[in-house]
Amino acid sequence: MQLLDGKKAALAIKEELTQKTAQLILQGKPRPHLAAILVGNDGASETYVASKVKTCAEIGFESTLKRLPNNISEEELLNEIEKLNQQEDVNGILVQLPLPKHISESKVIKAIHPSKDVDGFHPVSVGNMVSGAPTFIPATPYGILLLLEHFKVETKGKHAVVIGRSHIVGTPMSILLSRNTYPGNCTVTICHSATKNLKEICLQGDIIVAALGRAEFVTADMVKDGAVVIDVGITRVKDETKKSGFSLKGDVKFDEVAPKCSFITPVPGGVGPMTIAGLLMNTYNAYLQKHN
Amino acid sequence: MQLLDGKKAALAIKEELTQKTAQLILQGKPRPHLAAILVGNDGASETYVASKVKTCAEIGFESTLKRLPNNISEEELLNEIEKLNQQEDVNGILVQLPLPKHISESKVIKAIHPSKDVDGFHPVSVGNMVSGAPTFIPATPYGILLLLEHFKVETKGKHAVVIGRSHIVGTPMSILLSRNTYPGNCTVTICHSATKNLKEICLQGDIIVAALGRAEFVTADMVKDGAVVIDVGITRVKDETKKSGFSLKGDVKFDEVAPKCSFITPVPGGVGPMTIAGLLMNTYNAYLQKHN
Repeated sequence: MQLLDGKKAALAIKEELTQKTAQLILQGKPRPHLAAILVGNDGASETYVASKVKTCAEIGFESTLKRLPNNISEEELLNEIEKLNQQEDVNGILVQLPLPKHISESKVIKAIHPSKDVDGFHPVSVGNMVSGAPTFIPATPYGILLLLEHFKVETKGKHAVVIGRSHIVGTPMSILLSRNTYPGNCTVTICHSATKNLKEICLQGDIIVAALGRAEFVTADMVKDGAVVIDVGITRVKDETKKSGFSLKGDVKFDEVAPKCSFITPVPGGVGPMTIAGLLMNTYNAYLQKHN
Repeated sequence: MQLLDGKKAALAIKEELTQKTAQLILQGKPRPHLAAILVGNDGASETYVASKVKTCAEIGFESTLKRLPNNISEEELLNEIEKLNQQEDVNGILVQLPLPKHISESKVIKAIHPSKDVDGFHPVSVGNMVSGAPTFIPATPYGILLLLEHFKVETKGKHAVVIGRSHIVGTPMSILLSRNTYPGNCTVTICHSATKNLKEICLQGDIIVAALGRAEFVTADMVKDGAVVIDVGITRVKDETKKSGFSLKGDVKFDEVAPKCSFITPVPGGVGPMTIAGLLMNTYNAYLQKHN
């Protein structure tokens, strides 16, 4: 069993981007610039955004963090996005989700100009992804592709089973893995809450992508020997042995599944760091589109 | 075995649209209006476009057929599309594919305004489809959904196997059947040229959608008893017993597969007529969006 170490793969990508950014500076060019909007004070969102901003600093990207109050109106938020659309030196815009209930996420996503849509959620980005045109792939699926690439995991002709059909992970993942490219060219089965014989289907998976958001859902009896297991879940579970009072669990029961796998991602330290790597790569690509 | 008779289902939809159009006229409203662009003189394209125009006439829709020479420049074609985008009384625009090689299909598809994109190929339409937002679904997949609906075929929890990953049929079909709605809620497996154990996988299919474009590829030994089989293929095969010199074959070996099925589409007369029904429904929906 080999660990698909997301920290390690993300580090390699960050080092590459650091070098590329240093070269840009030597050439007298501006730095790639990511602008993040954070509405309100949700704890998890604060952590995610902080981590994105910190990583930008580490690799030499410029970043802007725009903090907006929880009671901002939809119109005001859309105005802020439009300002960033217009701002010449901003290459990528992300609005941290979820948003307060009085604001339409769909409207916000569509307000970001497709050329700066580094989260890859705009319909234009999604549509281009489906037709295989160059585009921004949503950060988590993109991170997973980068992870498979980094560890040279073979995918062609493999049967990939994706558990979960969210718009952010499961559905794009199933589309991407079926494309005629590497990583891809998998036969892909997408499963969800209406799937009847999930265990049988999982047992067919040469590759399993677990993205349903239920702690330790995938157990050893669902995984065939030699499978590649990608665990997208990350759930806080009460744990009195920890100082924090909780521990982080993936969608896969790691201890019992890992021994059966050829490759498996840990949680944390698997898909999580790769999501940020995907976002940074998108930001760099947005920069290149503008400056090449 | 019950035949999924596309002619019959399409007729029901056309009758419904005829009535709705008659009511619009009674209310003093304009007719829904489909504009088609045909470049060059390809025989099959001529037939398809003629059939679309004829059906518009039958149900009371207005239609415009713009014929352009094979040597038209990309720019001129894009200008023609822009004129139709601007034309207030045109609700839907379709450009018959394929186009001559000197013209970028992707540019042409993107030139059609999303609000008039009744073929559903614009990235915005595709992106909205993936995220489950209201949109224009490409005509063939939409026609298949309408067919399943018309014959009240159960889909929830079924395992659908889609053979073929084209952007026009296979990929959208796999996305649509996995959505949390009816028709949908299937576990979906998408197969293609890199799939290894196709027969085994097909044998799991409660629903099989054959969209690979190879005459009589799906044989009885690949289909389980009671399956629902949707045959999207239509290939001309030499046939000296026919006056025309050819006969039309689907992707499914109908004679031997049909007896095993609960439902199966004939070819011709199955998915074909439903594709036009899908296009007309999209045109009507485009009209409603504008006039409601």
